[in-house]
This record gives sequence, C-alpha cells and structure tokens, in this order.
Amino acid sequence: LMKYYLILTLALALSFAAHSKAEDTPDQWRTLDLDKTILLELETGPVIIELNPQFAPKHVEQISKLVTAGEYDGQSFYRVIDNFVAQGGMNVETTTKLPLLKLESDHQLTASDHFSMVSNKDMFVENTAFLNGFAIGFETKSRMSWLLHCPGIVGLSRQNEPDTGSSDFYITIGQAPRYLDRIMTVFGRVVFGMEHVQKLNRTESIEGDTLDRSIHSKIIKMQMMSDVPKAKRILIEVERTDTEQFEKKLIARMTREHPFFYIKPPQVLDVCQVPVNSRLVTSH
Amino acid sequence: LMKYYLILTLALALSFAAHSKAEDTPDQWRTLDLDKTILLELETGPVIIELNPQFAPKHVEQISKLVTAGEYDGQSFYRVIDNFVAQGGMNVETTTKLPLLKLESDHQLTASDHFSMVSNKDMFVENTAFLNGFAIGFETKSRMSWLLHCPGIVGLSRQNEPDTGSSDFYITIGQAPRYLDRIMTVFGRVVFGMEHVQKLNRTESIEGDTLDRSIHSKIIKMQMMSDVPKAKRILIEVERTDTEQFEKKLIARMTREHPFFYIKPPQVLDVCQVPVNSRLVTSH
Repeated sequence: LMKYYLILTLALALSFAAHSKAEDTPDQWRTLDLDKTILLELETGPVIIELNPQFAPKHVEQISKLVTAGEYDGQSFYRVIDNFVAQGGMNVETTTKLPLLKLESDHQLTASDHFSMVSNKDMFVENTAFLNGFAIGFETKSRMSWLLHCPGIVGLSRQNEPDTGSSDFYITIGQAPRYLDRIMTVFGRVVFGMEHVQKLNRTESIEGDTLDRSIHSKIIKMQMMSDVPKAKRILIEVERTDTEQFEKKLIARMTREHPFFYIKPPQVLDVCQVPVNSRLVTSH
Repeated sequence: LMKYYLILTLALALSFAAHSKAEDTPDQWRTLDLDKTILLELETGPVIIELNPQFAPKHVEQISKLVTAGEYDGQSFYRVIDNFVAQGGMNVETTTKLPLLKLESDHQLTASDHFSMVSNKDMFVENTAFLNGFAIGFETKSRMSWLLHCPGIVGLSRQNEPDTGSSDFYITIGQAPRYLDRIMTVFGRVVFGMEHVQKLNRTESIEGDTLDRSIHSKIIKMQMMSDVPKAKRILIEVERTDTEQFEKKLIARMTREHPFFYIKPPQVLDVCQVPVNSRLVTSH
C-alpha cells in the first residue's frame, strides 16, 4: 500500500495540471483530427492510424503528402516478421526522388503536456508515461521525452545509415522492440484494426518452412481520413490519457484488486502492456 | 564494455555447467520429444506446442490425455482478444467431470538446470533466464524459478478462484502479460505457427464495432505428435538455449554491434523480446 501511495504521489507530482484539466473536461474520450488520421485499407480489413505531429512533424507532413498523392495504393507489405514488424510501402529506391527525413525523436516536455505517469521501473528509460494516447519515455532532470516502440506503433523504415528513410514504414506486431527507441522515428500508432495487421501474410519465417512466403499482402488504398467520402469514413474516438479516470485505470492495473488476483502481482506496470481504448462513433 | 563483461561474468557464474555442456555437444539444435509435443490444426494452419513437464507435470499429463482422447477436436477459440490472449477448448463447465488442476508454477533450480542468464533488470522479477527454450524468472537466494508469460506461451484458463481449471487453455498473442506470472500455470509454448494463431478471429473488440465477433475459429484437430501418422508429422528442431552460441546471441542482442545501431540502445534485454528459433526438419 505504501508503494501505491508513493507512485500515486509521484504521478500527481509529475503530471503537471493533468488533474485540473480532467476536472474541466470530464469526458474521457476524444475525437481524432481527420487531417491527422490515415485510413489504410488492407485485404484483411481497415486499419486506422493516428499521426503524431507533435513528436514527428516533418514525418507526418511527408507521409501525409505521399498518402494524399496515392503513392501507397497498390503497394504491399513486403517484410512481415511474426512478433516483430510488418513493413510496407514502395520497396524501391525512392531515396533519389523523395526528401530523406532526419530522425525526429526527442521532445522537451512543457507544462502544457498533460501526461500520465506510468512507471519509474522501466528497463530502458528512467520514466514511462502516456501523452495524448502515445507511450512515452522521459528523463526526470532534462524533461526530454520520446515515443516508445510499443505494439502497434508506426515508424519510418531506413537503411543502416541514420536519416535514410523517406516513405516506407513499419508497424510493430509483437513484444515491444524497445531497443529501437530513439534511433527510429515513430510518427503514428494504430488505433483500430491491429487484428487486420496481424493477419498479413508473413514473408520471413523459420528454416525449412514450406509456406509460401513470396505472397506479399497488398495495400489496397491509403487515404487521409479527411479525404475519404463522408459516407465511407470510419470515425473513431480514443480514450483520453490525461484524465483522472485514466490515472485510476493505471493504478487499477497495478494494484489488481479483482478477486481473480488471489495473489497480487508485483505492483509495477509495463507501459506497452496498457491498452489505450478506442471506440467507433456509430452516427455521423 | 564494462557492463558487457559484468553481465557475461554474471551469466557464467549463474549458469552452472552450461558452458562445459555446450562444449561437449556443439550442436545448437535439439529435436522435440514427440510424446511431449502437440499438433494443433487450425483453419489458418498448423500450430506446434512444446509441453513443459518439468514445470507443470500434472497439467501436461491431463492435457495430453484430453488431446489423445480427441476432446478438443471440433472445439473452438471462443475468447480471442487482440494483443492479449486466444483462449480455446470446450467452453463448458467441464469442472464437474474433469479433475481440477492445482497451480504448478515454482521449480527450484538445481545444478542440472542449464539455464542462460538474460537480465537482472527485469521489472517483475529479480532475474530472467532461458531454461530449455522457455523464459523463466528466478530469485538469486532461494533459486526458486517459474515460467514467464511471454508471447506464445500456453497456459491453463481458470475461474476467479485458484485451482479451478481443467481443460481450456490460452495462448498469449501480444505484449507479455507478466502480471499473470505465478498465478496461472504455463504448461507449454508455441514453437511453430504463431502466425496461424494470430489469424484467429477476434471475439472481443472495441465499442461500436461492426465486425462479426460471433464467429469462433475452430480447432480442427488436436493430437499428440507421436499419434500423428509418420507421413503427416511436422518435425521441428528448436534452438538450444544452454549453449555458448545462445549466450553469444544474448550478448549480441544486448550490445548491438551492427552498424544499424549507430547509437547503441541501453544494454539491457527483455527476455520476452528474445526469439528462440525453430526450424523444420525436412527429411524424416
């Protein structure tokens, strides 16, 4: 119980004005900005990606332009490794035609960043938290933060050299590959349809495998949600992570008061194991 | 580099005779015991499960009996939650007919357990390691160990009360739900076909969802591999985790010498993010 209060106090201390914000606007859901949302149509079903211009403005700008120009339509996921990543795009040397993007990772937290503290026991970073639905890591002293490679994030692919990506992207589909934090740019996350990403044909697997790995699942179409005809839009609301309710959820996931937990687990939270919920808006 | 040596030394110190064992038998692959291997046939493809009688002898005995009796044939995965678990079996109150199983979790390490040390920075347990292909946690002083809820493990489902499971099982399909360690019995792990598990129809999802969640993917057949006719057997070799090569792999995943890592990540390893490889034996 001591631990609980310690962490709660820490969360309160670190989350700036999160609580007062939550009281001002009690709604625990937010609607997505259609100009910052991508509809990725796969043969296995629709996938919706929320972009993050706060951490990766130039990536969001370039990817949005390519999406609007229809550059991804008919392309494929050509590198899909189970429990790791699904990588898709043009799979060509686009680097001569498109501007190469410089890594966009670090963001200094300010008082207007209403994050919710998750843990100071993470293996890879001093602190973990949620900021606007995204899992972040941050350092207490410098207030430097970055987006974490949790399942379902969208990042820019590159060659071995830094800053060599321009268009192709990957979606993480397994245990968080946190060793990629800060050396790859995360520019979005899947808020709907991860199960459709999980159904993509795997292109690499175990030795001696007889499955057909040459079948690359297609990207039917990729559009900015604002460009999708109104009748065909899929409207999503995402759980706000800057509310008192969300902080209660974090504590509940740590303390596990449900009788199912007849022995309580260690009171720690893996930020990548906390779901941030979404829901479809049925009328529009 | 200091860290590297420290961890290497620790690994050597803790892994008992692992190194001398590795030198005696240089092969880095082991074949599965067909009597301790399950072939789970799904509509999406075959799945192979290696059982763990060392940690969960009574679970392995009961599940093997049910498999041999054909009890799972034609049953389904009735609770599939993306990034969490795929739960399958009879989905009936079998508890009146079948013996309830008591939790089987803790195992005291002995000198004959040739484990490979992974980390002493884990969030949930003092130490993590691999033992016979399975991720384990253990305490330094007591030498008590248990199997961890990494992606692809197979555990016994239960009600809220402890020791209330008998037949139905779950496969973890997302970020490791480590808070289930030691309160659920892990009795096996998927060594082939996780992509087929990932393709199972999800039965629960986000609010307002229009997808048909009532479709439960079927278990076509579940057999002990030793009962499968020879011509139809799928023979698998699994990477040994008690060899010098495997320990080198662990260090390589931590130190990341490849030029892709132009900045080195923190020198830590998430045990659930380390793949233990499998390969098909093509001739038999």
